[in-house]
Amino acid sequence: MTATTHEVFPIGWVRSTVKRRADAPKQGYEGAPDARIEVEAAFQPGLDRLTPGQDLLILTWLHEAQRDVLAVRPRRDPSKPLHGVFATRSPDRPNPIGIHRVRLLAIESGGVLHVAPLEAIDGTPVVDIKPALEEAGGW
Amino acid sequence: MTATTHEVFPIGWVRSTVKRRADAPKQGYEGAPDARIEVEAAFQPGLDRLTPGQDLLILTWLHEAQRDVLAVRPRRDPSKPLHGVFATRSPDRPNPIGIHRVRLLAIESGGVLHVAPLEAIDGTPVVDIKPALEEAGGW
Repeated sequence: MTATTHEVFPIGWVRSTVKRRADAPKQGYEGAPDARIEVEAAFQPGLDRLTPGQDLLILTWLHEAQRDVLAVRPRRDPSKPLHGVFATRSPDRPNPIGIHRVRLLAIESGGVLHVAPLEAIDGTPVVDIKPALEEAGGW
Repeated sequence: MTATTHEVFPIGWVRSTVKRRADAPKQGYEGAPDARIEVEAAFQPGLDRLTPGQDLLILTWLHEAQRDVLAVRPRRDPSKPLHGVFATRSPDRPNPIGIHRVRLLAIESGGVLHVAPLEAIDGTPVVDIKPALEEAGGW
């Protein structure tokens, strides 16, 4: 394999009432609660000009994922046939990067973003924050 | 900093007529061409049940990005004020993960996906492929 690896590191952390993967909705729009993102001090200058009310894409590192899985049953439904992981949104995948669209409710002191809805569990590393592009259909 | 790092690795590569970052549109909907994604043999089982015509999110590692930048002028426009990188889609950011929404035009032999539009340059590592979720506004 010609692959070279790259290092990804947390720029912040999810703080949520959802503590376990088994309790997390599979997608934010399926009843996920509001949550907070604590951005590390070193990266807080990167938050400049974020505006409450805007929609963001939060990229997380799904740290409890299994990375050696290439086939899953969608939504862990045993009645469904196996699918390649790239045809699903399963957190179990070679590079377990989660994408979450949220509304930025407020920017609190100390680099804390109050957002909703967010299905990621408490302690999930956040690796990037991007504004959602409405011109492109919301992603 | 309490951060732990994680390793991300290519599951495939962009093959495109766009060879240089200076020639790349800033977003796919700004006139980007079709392109191909060559998925590494080890990860081709993960493509099972992808269907031509569906929309995908391609996650890339923007390997030419500067990772130590926290403030940029949007779209490199000198008339614009500095913004925190997390308020922009600049490729220069701490974890330079690109998100690209594309249409899957065809699945070719050898694990090659023909997609459009894609603004990433030839040789860009692909780190994940996900189906776009129409229920959630397209991301």
